Amino acid sequence: MEIRELIEKIVKEMEEKGGLKNVVWVAAGGSNDGHYAAQYFMDRESTAVRSQMITSSEFEFAAPKCIGENTIAVITSMRGTKETIEAAKVAKELGAVTISQYVDESGLTEVCDYNVQYGSIWEDDEDQGRTNAGNALRIAMAIVDVTEGYKNYADAMDAFEKIQPAYVRAREYCRPLAKKWADQVKDEKTITVIASGPAYGSGHIFSTCNILEMLQIQSPTFNSCDFFHGPFEITDKNGAFFLLVADGRTRKADERAITFLKKYAGEKVYILDAKELGLDNLKDSVSEYFNHLLFTPILNNVYMKALSEATGIDYTTRRYMWKVEY
Amino acid sequence: MEIRELIEKIVKEMEEKGGLKNVVWVAAGGSNDGHYAAQYFMDRESTAVRSQMITSSEFEFAAPKCIGENTIAVITSMRGTKETIEAAKVAKELGAVTISQYVDESGLTEVCDYNVQYGSIWEDDEDQGRTNAGNALRIAMAIVDVTEGYKNYADAMDAFEKIQPAYVRAREYCRPLAKKWADQVKDEKTITVIASGPAYGSGHIFSTCNILEMLQIQSPTFNSCDFFHGPFEITDKNGAFFLLVADGRTRKADERAITFLKKYAGEKVYILDAKELGLDNLKDSVSEYFNHLLFTPILNNVYMKALSEATGIDYTTRRYMWKVEY
Repeated sequence: MEIRELIEKIVKEMEEKGGLKNVVWVAAGGSNDGHYAAQYFMDRESTAVRSQMITSSEFEFAAPKCIGENTIAVITSMRGTKETIEAAKVAKELGAVTISQYVDESGLTEVCDYNVQYGSIWEDDEDQGRTNAGNALRIAMAIVDVTEGYKNYADAMDAFEKIQPAYVRAREYCRPLAKKWADQVKDEKTITVIASGPAYGSGHIFSTCNILEMLQIQSPTFNSCDFFHGPFEITDKNGAFFLLVADGRTRKADERAITFLKKYAGEKVYILDAKELGLDNLKDSVSEYFNHLLFTPILNNVYMKALSEATGIDYTTRRYMWKVEY
Repeated sequence: MEIRELIEKIVKEMEEKGGLKNVVWVAAGGSNDGHYAAQYFMDRESTAVRSQMITSSEFEFAAPKCIGENTIAVITSMRGTKETIEAAKVAKELGAVTISQYVDESGLTEVCDYNVQYGSIWEDDEDQGRTNAGNALRIAMAIVDVTEGYKNYADAMDAFEKIQPAYVRAREYCRPLAKKWADQVKDEKTITVIASGPAYGSGHIFSTCNILEMLQIQSPTFNSCDFFHGPFEITDKNGAFFLLVADGRTRKADERAITFLKKYAGEKVYILDAKELGLDNLKDSVSEYFNHLLFTPILNNVYMKALSEATGIDYTTRRYMWKVEY
C-alpha cells in the first residue's frame, strides 16, 4: 500500500475512536535522527496533530500519557534493534496504530500493524526520496494533508521526484571538495558540526553517526540559531568547523555563524550549502523541508567516506557495537 | 498574581476563542535549556495541550503554524536577550498570549502580556523552586491540572517546598566531591556529559553553558538512552565522562551507561546521582520531574565553580559574548 493510501486508511478507521490526535516517531541512534525532517515538518505545519520524536529506550521506559488509540506510532529500525522492538511493543500495548519502517524483516515487523520498507541512504540506493527520512516525511505530509489540508502537498510530491537526480549530481560535484576537506582535517581530534532548522537533523547525524560512531572522532553538534548564546565561545584559530547552510527560513542564522567564523576561526571552517547541492531545483514553497533528504546522503556517502579514506579508518569497524556485551 | 492563578485566568479567557491548544517555550542558550523540565513534563503528562520548545531565533525565523490565539507562549530571558525580544514580538503578532520569565525588566517585559519574575540559580538565591526552570515547571503543571486534571498536583506543590532545603544540603555534601573531581579533570580538553529523560536538560546546561561557555572547555552532551547507538564508540581509558543519574523511569538507561563505562572507560568517570542529592525526599509520584531543579543549581554552583577554581579560569569571563560584534 502506498504511504498516502495507508495514512488515509488509518485516519479513516480512527475516526470512530475520536480521530487522529498525535503521532510519535520512535527509533534509536541514526534512525532516531532520521525522523528529524518529519518532526520538523509537523512542528511547523501541523495545527491539528501533535508530534513527538523520542529515542527508543526513553519511549520504552517513560512513554507519553497521550499515546493511545488516537496515536500513530512510526517506529524505525533497519534490522530490528532490540530497544526499538521493545518500544514498539509498548506503543502497541498502549493502543497506538504502529507503522514500522524497515530494511530487513525482524521482530519489529512482526510486532507492528503495518510495515513500510525503505532503502538505506548508501550510495547505490535507488531513490533518496524513499529512505527512512524520506518516507517519514511522506507520512508527516500525508498526515497534515489528510487531517487538515496542506496547501503545498502537490509541490512536495513533485519535490520527492527531484531529490534523486539532485543527489546524483551533488554527489559528483562534492567528491573533489570532500577529498580536499578530508585531507585538511584528517588529524583533528574534534570536528564541530553546526546546522539549524530543517538541516539540524542532518548535522546531528553527520557528527554523531558518521564522524563519531563510524570514525571514532569526537564531534559535538550545535544549532546555529543558538550558537551565539554559548557554543561560539569555543571558537579559535585551531578549531575544525563544518557548517551546513540550509535553504529556508533559518538560513539567516547559518549565515550569521559563517560571518563570525570567517572572522574568529582559522582555516578549518568548511561550508556546505544546500543551494550548492541543488535544493534550488525544488519549488520554493517546499524546498525547506527537503534539506535533510539531500544533506544526509551527501554527508554519509561523500564526506564521511572521504574522511574515512584520508584518516585510514575503516568506517565499517566499531570498537564496541555488535562486538561486546552492553 | 500567583502562577496557578495566572494560568486559570488565561485558560478561562481563552475558552471563548476555542480554548488552550498549545504552549510554546521560547528562549536562547541556557534559558532555552531551562525550559526542558517543563517540556519533558508536558511531553509525558499532557494529553490535551501540545508543547514545543524552540530556541529564540528559530522561533523568530520559522514559527510553527499552530501559534495563535489558542497558544500560551512562555518566553524567558534574564535581562532581555535581543533575539528573545524579537521572538516575543513574533509570538504576540501571531496572537499568542505571552508570558515572560525575567530577572530584570527589559524590552521583553514591555512586549509581553504578563511577566513572571524569577530568581537566578546562583548560590545566594532564596528558592530553587522559583528559578526559570522552577517557574516554567509550575506553569506546565498548572496547565495540565487546569485543562485536564493532574492527579499528582498536590504532591508536586509539596515537592516545590522541599527543593530549597534539599539543594542547600546537597550543596554542602557535594563541595568536597566536586573539588576532587575538578582536580582530576582540570587539564582535560573535552569533558563528555551523559544524562537522560528528566535530567537531560540539566546535562545539556552543564556541558554547553557551564563547561563550554563559561570555562571554554569542549563538552558534548549525549542521552544515555541513545548512548549505545553511536556515542559510546568514543569511550576509551583517557576520556573524561560526567554522568547524571536520574531518579525516575529512565534511571535504568543511566545505570546501563555506568556499567559500560566502569568496564571500558578509565579513571575519569564521575557519577552524580539524584538520589545522593536528596531527590528521594520528594514523593515518588512526582520526584522524577524535579531532577532538573536539583541538578542544575548543584552543577552550576558547585561543580562548575570547582572546575573554575581548579583550572584557574574565571567563569565570568568570555571570549566573545558581550565583547565583540556578532
